[in-house]
Amino acid sequence: MARHPAARGLADDAAVLGWPLGQDLVATHDMLAEGVHFTPDCPPADIGWKLAAVNLSDLAAMGARPVGVLMGAGIGDGRGADWAGALLKGLMQCLDAHGTPLLGGDTIRSGPASVLSLTALGQLPPGSALSRSGAAGGDDLWVSGTIGDAGLGLRVAQGLSVAADPSGKAALLKRYRRPVPRLALGLALRGLASAAMDVSDGLLIDAARLGAASGLAVRLESSAIPLSDAARGTGVPVNDLAAMGDDYELLFAAPASARADVAAAAAAARTPVSRIGALCPGADLLLDGARPARLGYQHR
Amino acid sequence: MARHPAARGLADDAAVLGWPLGQDLVATHDMLAEGVHFTPDCPPADIGWKLAAVNLSDLAAMGARPVGVLMGAGIGDGRGADWAGALLKGLMQCLDAHGTPLLGGDTIRSGPASVLSLTALGQLPPGSALSRSGAAGGDDLWVSGTIGDAGLGLRVAQGLSVAADPSGKAALLKRYRRPVPRLALGLALRGLASAAMDVSDGLLIDAARLGAASGLAVRLESSAIPLSDAARGTGVPVNDLAAMGDDYELLFAAPASARADVAAAAAAARTPVSRIGALCPGADLLLDGARPARLGYQHR
Repeated sequence: MARHPAARGLADDAAVLGWPLGQDLVATHDMLAEGVHFTPDCPPADIGWKLAAVNLSDLAAMGARPVGVLMGAGIGDGRGADWAGALLKGLMQCLDAHGTPLLGGDTIRSGPASVLSLTALGQLPPGSALSRSGAAGGDDLWVSGTIGDAGLGLRVAQGLSVAADPSGKAALLKRYRRPVPRLALGLALRGLASAAMDVSDGLLIDAARLGAASGLAVRLESSAIPLSDAARGTGVPVNDLAAMGDDYELLFAAPASARADVAAAAAAARTPVSRIGALCPGADLLLDGARPARLGYQHR
Repeated sequence: MARHPAARGLADDAAVLGWPLGQDLVATHDMLAEGVHFTPDCPPADIGWKLAAVNLSDLAAMGARPVGVLMGAGIGDGRGADWAGALLKGLMQCLDAHGTPLLGGDTIRSGPASVLSLTALGQLPPGSALSRSGAAGGDDLWVSGTIGDAGLGLRVAQGLSVAADPSGKAALLKRYRRPVPRLALGLALRGLASAAMDVSDGLLIDAARLGAASGLAVRLESSAIPLSDAARGTGVPVNDLAAMGDDYELLFAAPASARADVAAAAAAARTPVSRIGALCPGADLLLDGARPARLGYQHR
């Protein structure tokens, strides 16, 4: 499974790799379960891609450069070698696209449902990690890419009504099944963003979390929330799109004096960013001056 | 869940920790699934202990010092907070016993069965990792502790007949449910053992693997295989005990000229070791000069 020299051909009990001198280690571990995070009919290559992408997105949110990943593949009853092979192929597509080696892992039978785990390891210079808690009152709030596409893609996957033509639906579905971790932007924001996190549960609830971690209130303007043409075409209100999950965009704060620097960093990372609001003293989240009816997906 | 400073109070998307200058990183990832690796009625604290222990055992086999772990807890339907809490308690008992912090992780609902994953990170000086493939013809083969106790403990857990009194059965069951990773011995063997691995699928099959990785044949003497009093008392033949899994002892090779050094290393690590055979040119495994009828547990 693992092709990196550090994996030692899987001959040994663990992978060994030299660590870059003077770099801190960043580590994150996320799981995906069949019937919870993906449906039984989801293409396994897309599951593999997403397993890698959601963990690399956590590294991006820290401003870390990926070093490698370890995968745990719990293969459910009734899944054959084809399914497991396609899962691995999709995982490797995402890893290869982001220059990240597979260092090792474990493959087991997991019972009725497939359950997948991944640990992503990254590196960054000491003291340079981005955090949710560093924003200051008066900072701008920014987000990358567009919001709500993945949530609409989930509706497409569920066979629900979405007002889009076939190519629009395909684009939305791809955003749900193959999110792209914003690694280049995360690196470019080191030393520039005062706070950062990735948007996984919905823009509004994650913005509220960044505000709470920084001890600040959040003010958002719905007209500034970036939407794709496909999302705009569906007619779904922006307030609803901002309460959908799975965007895997970067949400970050930066001083208002750094607007030109943020624009330059985004251009260097070839990643569009939009200024959607600000942080200020207080503890609530207001969208166009009002408390939203619904913030987003709440984990157990 | 994570109490280590590197976990940043779980406020951020990933853990950050300073890496010791000039040390290589060792990483391993193993999963345990309900109905496959543990029965539904297994005490959750024992599952948590074993999840940590089997991964730390992989670090021990490399001669690595643990740095920390990340856990993925896929909690099955019908398991409540009590079960998950006991799982975490058992995990922390094993980690605390081995000075290893929990750096982070993920807790999800995993569907019908519980599925657990763990990544263990360790450190060692460059070039000092133990490997399965380094043995030379003429090297002695050694094993730590005693063999077969865990396999008998599995029989006890399954309610099968085991000829032992209640305290003997309890001791065997504990060896199955709470294996102790041989971390101190692994560290003491750096620069001394020519090859090493942990015994997880059975002494015979794992010895055959070490021999194959080193390109050598294995000669074992059954009278030298270390047995506990409880195991000996059951009357199960040593050839059968050596084909049972879950021992999590260290199997290692060392030059015959290093016998006194191995004894001193084992004493320093407070871990009993036994010389059970030798490696020699060839490609087979012989026990008392004959090919065993059965080597042990074969994965998928």
